Amino acid sequence: MTDIRKDRAYLISHIRERQTVLTVGLDSDIKKLPAVVKGDVLAFNKVIIDATRDVCIAYKINFAFYESLGLKGWEILEKTIEHIGDRHFIIADAKRGDIGNTSEMYARAVFDHLGCDAITVNPYMGSDSVNPFLREGKWVILLAYTSNVGSHDFQQLKLDDGRKVYEAVMETTAAYGNASNTMYVIGATHPDELKQIRFRYPEHFFLIPGIGAQGGDLDAVLQAGLNKDGGLLINASRSIIYAGAGSDFAEKGRVEAERMNVVIRKYLNKKA
Amino acid sequence: MTDIRKDRAYLISHIRERQTVLTVGLDSDIKKLPAVVKGDVLAFNKVIIDATRDVCIAYKINFAFYESLGLKGWEILEKTIEHIGDRHFIIADAKRGDIGNTSEMYARAVFDHLGCDAITVNPYMGSDSVNPFLREGKWVILLAYTSNVGSHDFQQLKLDDGRKVYEAVMETTAAYGNASNTMYVIGATHPDELKQIRFRYPEHFFLIPGIGAQGGDLDAVLQAGLNKDGGLLINASRSIIYAGAGSDFAEKGRVEAERMNVVIRKYLNKKA
Repeated sequence: MTDIRKDRAYLISHIRERQTVLTVGLDSDIKKLPAVVKGDVLAFNKVIIDATRDVCIAYKINFAFYESLGLKGWEILEKTIEHIGDRHFIIADAKRGDIGNTSEMYARAVFDHLGCDAITVNPYMGSDSVNPFLREGKWVILLAYTSNVGSHDFQQLKLDDGRKVYEAVMETTAAYGNASNTMYVIGATHPDELKQIRFRYPEHFFLIPGIGAQGGDLDAVLQAGLNKDGGLLINASRSIIYAGAGSDFAEKGRVEAERMNVVIRKYLNKKA
Repeated sequence: MTDIRKDRAYLISHIRERQTVLTVGLDSDIKKLPAVVKGDVLAFNKVIIDATRDVCIAYKINFAFYESLGLKGWEILEKTIEHIGDRHFIIADAKRGDIGNTSEMYARAVFDHLGCDAITVNPYMGSDSVNPFLREGKWVILLAYTSNVGSHDFQQLKLDDGRKVYEAVMETTAAYGNASNTMYVIGATHPDELKQIRFRYPEHFFLIPGIGAQGGDLDAVLQAGLNKDGGLLINASRSIIYAGAGSDFAEKGRVEAERMNVVIRKYLNKKA
């Protein structure tokens, strides 16, 4: 746990310093680890983190993968966060959200107990489900238009005022907080919409999943979404952490991260 | 963990046998426990469970309250589920939902690892976020129209085809599964809508939060929502588990449960 506030200024200065918006997603599946780590998820995470520290600005921890291991998984989650330390932005990818008194408990779990800097939150339950996460120096990352096939089922439905559901979600929730405590999840699989969203929300940070295994196009996302501060956290999980299956898996992951950074820098230097 | 499948027949037979649809919500907040349990959440849960076993058919475990305690909380959660045993339906009130491979991990956590019978799921991310929870002998309980103030923010928005968002959510997700593996969360604070929803979905079970601390009217919910099988799981959390602050807290909780059951039986016997 740290006392450093990873606020907007922190994020922007780290993006400038490391010249990247890359976020490494620790979706560490015990069934997919390289043989060399012998099923030790924590050891795997530590090696991946140490190999990618200077080529990313954030780590995104997918809580489901740890919860699937029960008590042991929760312990690995705590120790992974400790190992990341102060020099990276830590995202609890937990997709939480409930009535006010319950969201407050989730906020305590993720911010106070685990010491994460941000949490992904599902907006379906509205204002009182989101507000408890809006804390000084912390971030709420709201699902807006997600990367998956199912994003078309409800997020894309058209309202009687002409807006789509995800557009209403963004407009309404943008007023709960501001660009210094609220981000949005926008899937890499929707670059056209990302361009429009950037136009409407010039200052907000967007967390972009869906590059790599899910098929999103990195160039298209960067062209559509970057702003003067960077303004994106582009996540890659499987394509980095499973880049290799041998004893050099972390090195291969780093190579993949650097390959992405070459593309990221091409666009970042034009904007920032 | 148990091998007993708590399917539709199990639920209906337990409702007939115990003559109730009462669900006790274990939202056990370490800051609100009676002094006599000395901050021991597990001991508190065990005493509450033992005092209410024969007056309810289900327990709903609000994961946020356990996660807020970190590793220790996860352990309490496991042991609470063990203590409930085979004769009650166990709901993981976790409000999960993510892309397919991640929802699959949440399903493993809640069904395989913890042995719960049902999980509350947020439908915002659509089909592939819900489908991994649809398993033989297990239940998905989808958020439809929730009990909180924020339920008006998005669930009540009107679509261009005249339906409300929550109505579209119910219509679309009802086709993912069926009335033997899918339930819906409908807040007790919306009895008029509950009546219409029951008309459209005569067979589905509905989980009803919002009685008690949130202000829902028990009589109105029963009149609007019961069907021939019962068809409701009416949850009460704070009004039962915090019914007393002295050493007789569990007895007082039981009295509150029995008070609710008197009302429940008045309507249940007319329908079932």
